[in-house]
Amino acid sequence: MLGKFWNRYTASTTTRAVRVLGTAKPSASIVNFRRSLCRISATNNEEASAKAAAANADSGAPTIFDKIIAKEIPSTIVYEDEKVLAFRDVNPQAPVHVLVIPKLRDGLTQLGKAEVRHEQILGQLLYAARLVAEKEGILDGFRVVINSGPDACQSVYHLHLHVLGGRQMKWPPG
Amino acid sequence: MLGKFWNRYTASTTTRAVRVLGTAKPSASIVNFRRSLCRISATNNEEASAKAAAANADSGAPTIFDKIIAKEIPSTIVYEDEKVLAFRDVNPQAPVHVLVIPKLRDGLTQLGKAEVRHEQILGQLLYAARLVAEKEGILDGFRVVINSGPDACQSVYHLHLHVLGGRQMKWPPG
Repeated sequence: MLGKFWNRYTASTTTRAVRVLGTAKPSASIVNFRRSLCRISATNNEEASAKAAAANADSGAPTIFDKIIAKEIPSTIVYEDEKVLAFRDVNPQAPVHVLVIPKLRDGLTQLGKAEVRHEQILGQLLYAARLVAEKEGILDGFRVVINSGPDACQSVYHLHLHVLGGRQMKWPPG
Repeated sequence: MLGKFWNRYTASTTTRAVRVLGTAKPSASIVNFRRSLCRISATNNEEASAKAAAANADSGAPTIFDKIIAKEIPSTIVYEDEKVLAFRDVNPQAPVHVLVIPKLRDGLTQLGKAEVRHEQILGQLLYAARLVAEKEGILDGFRVVINSGPDACQSVYHLHLHVLGGRQMKWPPG
């Protein structure tokens, strides 16, 4: 259901959309670039997506999350309050994989852009991650991951926390 | 330098100390248990450490971090303020690997124990992670990881944020 909306969303999220939908046919050079970066598979290439998305990181352009917040794109919402939205990742890396985001980006394209004034929302997001873990029945074991910038595999430039659980997580964390 | 202190710290952190120091000779059954859990190597077994540490998770017993905060055990401090301490992980998983902790645990043995009243310190910790990334020169790409419980590889029951960077991080995050 989400696919057709993602297909239309071709600005900063093209590569991610290709990864998720797996329908486009990238050129040989793009494939080689992906393979050189990715240790998993050609269809699960968060690293290459991150490199592509970083090109527009500082543009302040809307991201796909704006459409999810506005409910123009459907998502499976797990938790919501006035400031925070949590919904399932469309490419889950564990039995439970939920993204927790601030409804108002307010300059927080990535954690690396955080200022002192953001401490309150940062705390609310982490506490919301704990609420999500409780709702999902993984309070006994879950991992929260925040990627900031392409080296960390950030692929959407709207701060988001990954909440993962439901399986034994490995170490190192990627 | 840290090793001799860790050797003495045999309560909830024995397995972690064994992993770090690599001097003790675990029994065959422990080795098999570790191997069944660990996909990396017998000397880098955060998962087995986590299982062992979880036995004392709710005891409220002091952890090795209390001694680091009290500076009874030396650590390489990267950042410090009134509420937060950040120091290098003794078993780094990336060129930069720093732990960010609250100086006062205040019930935060793990993120899964967070209450609304903890939002302020949670926000301060995440902002401190960003300051650490800046000081370490990895602001363009870093990952923050919080493990809560044994399934997530938590091995010390005093909330801590891992800040990792200086290399391409992989996906999934463990």
